[in-house]
Amino acid sequence: MKARVTVMLKTGVLDPQGEAVRHALGTLGFAGVTGVRQGKVIELDLAQTDAAAAETEVKAMCEKLLANTVIESYRVEIL
Amino acid sequence: MKARVTVMLKTGVLDPQGEAVRHALGTLGFAGVTGVRQGKVIELDLAQTDAAAAETEVKAMCEKLLANTVIESYRVEIL
Repeated sequence: MKARVTVMLKTGVLDPQGEAVRHALGTLGFAGVTGVRQGKVIELDLAQTDAAAAETEVKAMCEKLLANTVIESYRVEIL
Repeated sequence: MKARVTVMLKTGVLDPQGEAVRHALGTLGFAGVTGVRQGKVIELDLAQTDAAAAETEVKAMCEKLLANTVIESYRVEIL
């Protein structure tokens, strides 16, 4: 079973990486970009075959390791 | 208009960051994780209001800046 975790900085947390991308896009001539946020995506291959159990397990991974829940929010999709 | 770009290393390209995550998950007791790939997600706010034109523009951004197409593949979603 596959799972995809998307981790983004929470709204209001400064995202210098996203700002750098926005600036670089402007320099390259892409003028219509008003905001950029950059996050990470983690694709997991799981031995677990039950979707509900897999989701619970992946959420535990997010809380313990994959996301810093003080400043980041995460979304889990089971594929 | 919003767009989401997901950039992942191509299959076969070594992903040390993903490997490190897999190892760390194992150390934390998550034994059922057989593979991890880590990529990045970029959320863009665009002034463009036409979906087809926005997709063309974002694909050009990917080719020029957001993805290294030698080793990375990208996916564009218009939200």
